[in-house]
Amino acid sequence: MPGGKLITFEGIEGSGKTSHLGRLSCYLAETGVRHIVTREPGGTQFGQEIRAVLLNSSGASRHPYSELLLYLADRVQDLNEVIRPALESGNHVLCDRYHDATRAYQGFARGIPSGLIDTLAKKLQILTPDLTLVFEVDIPQGLERARHRNLQKGQETQGRFEKEDLDFHRRVQQGYRFIAELEPKRFRFVNTSGEFDQAQTQVREIVRSFLEG
Amino acid sequence: MPGGKLITFEGIEGSGKTSHLGRLSCYLAETGVRHIVTREPGGTQFGQEIRAVLLNSSGASRHPYSELLLYLADRVQDLNEVIRPALESGNHVLCDRYHDATRAYQGFARGIPSGLIDTLAKKLQILTPDLTLVFEVDIPQGLERARHRNLQKGQETQGRFEKEDLDFHRRVQQGYRFIAELEPKRFRFVNTSGEFDQAQTQVREIVRSFLEG
Repeated sequence: MPGGKLITFEGIEGSGKTSHLGRLSCYLAETGVRHIVTREPGGTQFGQEIRAVLLNSSGASRHPYSELLLYLADRVQDLNEVIRPALESGNHVLCDRYHDATRAYQGFARGIPSGLIDTLAKKLQILTPDLTLVFEVDIPQGLERARHRNLQKGQETQGRFEKEDLDFHRRVQQGYRFIAELEPKRFRFVNTSGEFDQAQTQVREIVRSFLEG
Repeated sequence: MPGGKLITFEGIEGSGKTSHLGRLSCYLAETGVRHIVTREPGGTQFGQEIRAVLLNSSGASRHPYSELLLYLADRVQDLNEVIRPALESGNHVLCDRYHDATRAYQGFARGIPSGLIDTLAKKLQILTPDLTLVFEVDIPQGLERARHRNLQKGQETQGRFEKEDLDFHRRVQQGYRFIAELEPKRFRFVNTSGEFDQAQTQVREIVRSFLEG
């Protein structure tokens, strides 16, 4: 039995990645494609404890390297507890944010040298995805979506990253583009500024053609 | 003004390191030696959030590398927020557990390769202590002390590490000895199986002679 593929979903807040991942998962299930869904941070029970610390807006001062190590701690747990066993048993894995998020957010936007992130990833045997979809949206539109979603969830306050300024999110989006240029075969970009269904059709085509290819 | 020195206190549960650190700190304060006290994990507000995850006995499965990264995340925060600024302003720092604990517990006792721990420490610019005191106790005696202390605090349950078997604590204690052999100048061993005051006298002599030397 061939191993599964690791497919990751990336993009800024409000880019639609989580919604598109969910809809794709339904479609794959309906068409009999064995897969599991996970997310980072928080794909495991231990990861949820780490996620609560990471997304907590307590105001505690946090060094960028310290934050980076928490994301990596979550990833290592998810990789060993969820992702690797799934891939080995022939399931594909759809992961809502993964290591490219760390490279874009902690690297490009927070300024941690990419050499450090890459070295740590190598030492920790962080798996490279087989396919990465990056969801792009007009930044103010994305942040407005994220704000609206938080209001619907009854969250009055903004999340940690939604509080950041436009320039921060621009650096993240540019970071994804830069990373993708280094490995063009692995990346596909999906613009989600228009209709959801249109973008979802594109997502399905990308994933179907990749899995069949 | 000369910089301060980093003095770390190590040992298994119930070895008396925290009590000896506290008593030494009083003595140093009375004799006008400028210093601060910190601990790992949990020397900072962010570190306390990380400590809560680490010492939580939720039963969530945790990969040794993931646990290692949380200890390092706490350390990086403590180093940058507390330790380095204190040393630079001429204060000595007394730290209750530090990187040798990671090497002994996560390395020797949990089996993470020392090469990985050392590489990560180097990349993260983990400072080497100037002096390290290792408190040694007869292991069943130490665990009995730790159990008694927990009961006094009203904690019915054992901590994460106190649950481990004698063999685990033996590996930790052996780990400290092994590490010390690699850097004999930095380490001093204090046996705390006997009277507290006698061991405290030894601690004061070690630290005074080090600071004057």
